[in-house]
Amino acid sequence: MATGNLAEAIEAVIGRVDEQRLWRRHREIAQFGATGRGGVNRQALTPEDTAARRQLLQWAAARGFAVSVDAIGNLFIRRPGRESEAAPVVAGSHLDTQPTGGNFDGIFGVLAAFEVLEAAAEAGVKTARPIEAVVWTNEEGSRFQPGTMGSAVYAGYLPLAEALGSVDNQGTRLGDSLKAMLDALAVTTRREFRAPIAAYLEAHIEQGPILEAEHRRIGVVTGIQGLKWLRVEVKGEEAHAGTTPRRARRDACAAAIEMISALRELTSDEADLLRFTVGRFELSPNSPNTVPGSAFFTIDLRHPDRDLLANIGAQIEPLCRSQAAGCIVNVIETLDSPPVRFDPAIVAMVRRAAERQQLPCLELVSGATHDAKFIAELCPAGMVFIPCERGISHNETERASVSDLAAGARVLAEVILTLAGV
Amino acid sequence: MATGNLAEAIEAVIGRVDEQRLWRRHREIAQFGATGRGGVNRQALTPEDTAARRQLLQWAAARGFAVSVDAIGNLFIRRPGRESEAAPVVAGSHLDTQPTGGNFDGIFGVLAAFEVLEAAAEAGVKTARPIEAVVWTNEEGSRFQPGTMGSAVYAGYLPLAEALGSVDNQGTRLGDSLKAMLDALAVTTRREFRAPIAAYLEAHIEQGPILEAEHRRIGVVTGIQGLKWLRVEVKGEEAHAGTTPRRARRDACAAAIEMISALRELTSDEADLLRFTVGRFELSPNSPNTVPGSAFFTIDLRHPDRDLLANIGAQIEPLCRSQAAGCIVNVIETLDSPPVRFDPAIVAMVRRAAERQQLPCLELVSGATHDAKFIAELCPAGMVFIPCERGISHNETERASVSDLAAGARVLAEVILTLAGV
Repeated sequence: MATGNLAEAIEAVIGRVDEQRLWRRHREIAQFGATGRGGVNRQALTPEDTAARRQLLQWAAARGFAVSVDAIGNLFIRRPGRESEAAPVVAGSHLDTQPTGGNFDGIFGVLAAFEVLEAAAEAGVKTARPIEAVVWTNEEGSRFQPGTMGSAVYAGYLPLAEALGSVDNQGTRLGDSLKAMLDALAVTTRREFRAPIAAYLEAHIEQGPILEAEHRRIGVVTGIQGLKWLRVEVKGEEAHAGTTPRRARRDACAAAIEMISALRELTSDEADLLRFTVGRFELSPNSPNTVPGSAFFTIDLRHPDRDLLANIGAQIEPLCRSQAAGCIVNVIETLDSPPVRFDPAIVAMVRRAAERQQLPCLELVSGATHDAKFIAELCPAGMVFIPCERGISHNETERASVSDLAAGARVLAEVILTLAGV
Repeated sequence: MATGNLAEAIEAVIGRVDEQRLWRRHREIAQFGATGRGGVNRQALTPEDTAARRQLLQWAAARGFAVSVDAIGNLFIRRPGRESEAAPVVAGSHLDTQPTGGNFDGIFGVLAAFEVLEAAAEAGVKTARPIEAVVWTNEEGSRFQPGTMGSAVYAGYLPLAEALGSVDNQGTRLGDSLKAMLDALAVTTRREFRAPIAAYLEAHIEQGPILEAEHRRIGVVTGIQGLKWLRVEVKGEEAHAGTTPRRARRDACAAAIEMISALRELTSDEADLLRFTVGRFELSPNSPNTVPGSAFFTIDLRHPDRDLLANIGAQIEPLCRSQAAGCIVNVIETLDSPPVRFDPAIVAMVRRAAERQQLPCLELVSGATHDAKFIAELCPAGMVFIPCERGISHNETERASVSDLAAGARVLAEVILTLAGV
């Protein structure tokens, strides 16, 4: 394969990436689960999720692309390559959303990959390897836990039976919801888990404020930061708010407040790379005139550096105990996801593609977790970020620009073609 | 009336205060709403409340005591005096409980007053004024808000219509529950609100640890501390926990934590008289991986000194604003109940009665609010406390001793007789 051919193929395909079509498709998919306030509620394996997938399959059918599905519902839309037995280059993301999600998180990665398939078809460029757009099932994890489920099962990090047994708040088993969706979609070709993938790409909105602040249009994602979740339980003693002197109290709220205050100091970071969040905090009995007998809060701790994350993580429990003020403290680690470093060759390809297309870019580490985390364990992988307004995501006001969406798709196209060969 | 007669009458009546009967009656009333875990769920105007009142009325009927009821359901059990038109000396409390309440809070004041009526009857002592035992409706306020409702309506501080319109969590209107109770009890004599009372006494467990710690058996209550309730609302911005640097966050939880930490410092008090409690704290969306967009917490602030309480209260809003960290802060005062000072003559009578009966006593200010707060606006009033184990109340494990209950009733008897005259 001559480089000249590849360069021409790239020009032909990115010339066919259709900014207006890509934008229109975002608008069309945003109708499935539209909340009426600009956002979307399209949680995994709901009728809305099924309807969005059906729309995508109609677009695929119109192009004659083949479709396969695996046992957890991950959908693969294929444009064949010259070497039909070669492992495909796969790109995609998810199309489920948070209960009050936006119009770009996840779906952009799916539609950008599909746009590359269509642009290649229109350009008449035949790749050596097959290229595929993938929809991973249940990335958000808001209805069924855990999230990044489809990619975790595909890559062998979560047993299928465990995923199928997950139950939502209404008592519905994931296996039943999945069967309903698969019956409705009627995709007959089965994909095996861990079927070889030559390389994996995922385009996504940044979900953070850095690209916008730095006036860059493409984020060259070097990895995904590590993540620890902890749950801190504080057991004191309920007492009457009016009669119990402070010295006689074992106030679970007061102890938790001091713990969090000390933890915020521990996690203060001049470089502002260490992410520390207390997202849940609950008291019992949660009554204005009763000294709380128990409290719990969650910690979400992230950093790109494995050792630093482990070191800070190890300080949490002793620090909480030092602020216990007579309460009993229980610190439980509920998740430990080490940092991921993407394949350096793919990172370099993303950067070169952005630079060649004269798109200002920046290397960064993904703050959020993505399906790419698990797929990176199977094959070389990388990600392409585009800016989103003020970094706001998981929110109905999430916004990305028409031109940034298209720019992301063009960078994705160049990297996919480079990896697939012509 | 010769002092000699009064002294003899007091000796005769306190000699008839029956420790075992008083204890047995506590046990009997504790059956109404018993939770099976040692505690009681006998919320206001429930069938359990009605059943407990019916039991009390049966005991009253057995003695031939007259009963009247007012339009909010306060029950008055009367032993007539020689001067039938004279305003009565009234003593009592409430028999409703918290959802997980104990066997002594409230009901002790009712049963102690009733014990005084019975002991006087058995001793054949005729008082000059009528003496009455009262049951105030809905002191706890856990089912219908506000609490201390019966006494507030009786004293004219809460309009009857407002009380009748209170609705519980199930959508039941207080007026309907009250009608069901009054129909079931079928008490025909009506009592007018603000009908004159010569003096009011209330016996109660301390609900705090002081008497036990100081090895005293009687608390001479000089007043009820002032109480302010505030609600602090903090509005920040939801953001992704993984992607949003600390400097870009408007984290409602972090701001609330710093506010509470600063408020705890503000309210730190060497004498340990100032009571500061954050009893409720809630985050939204309360999700582990989302920076909280909003938070609210409640403040319960109490002190016996009106000026000090006002002064600290006035510092809360500016202090919260100083810790807002980019969030919007809204501080709302939801309750402002100034301190009450009981009638000095009655306070002195309680102390003298305890000392004469050789019961170690201590003057103290009630940390909790009681029905005596509103009745003290109508007539001279006072309270008698007895110890409760470790100060624990509003809790199924609430405990008071057989002998302390009887000691409290004997002090109450002496004060009632002194006030009623013989």
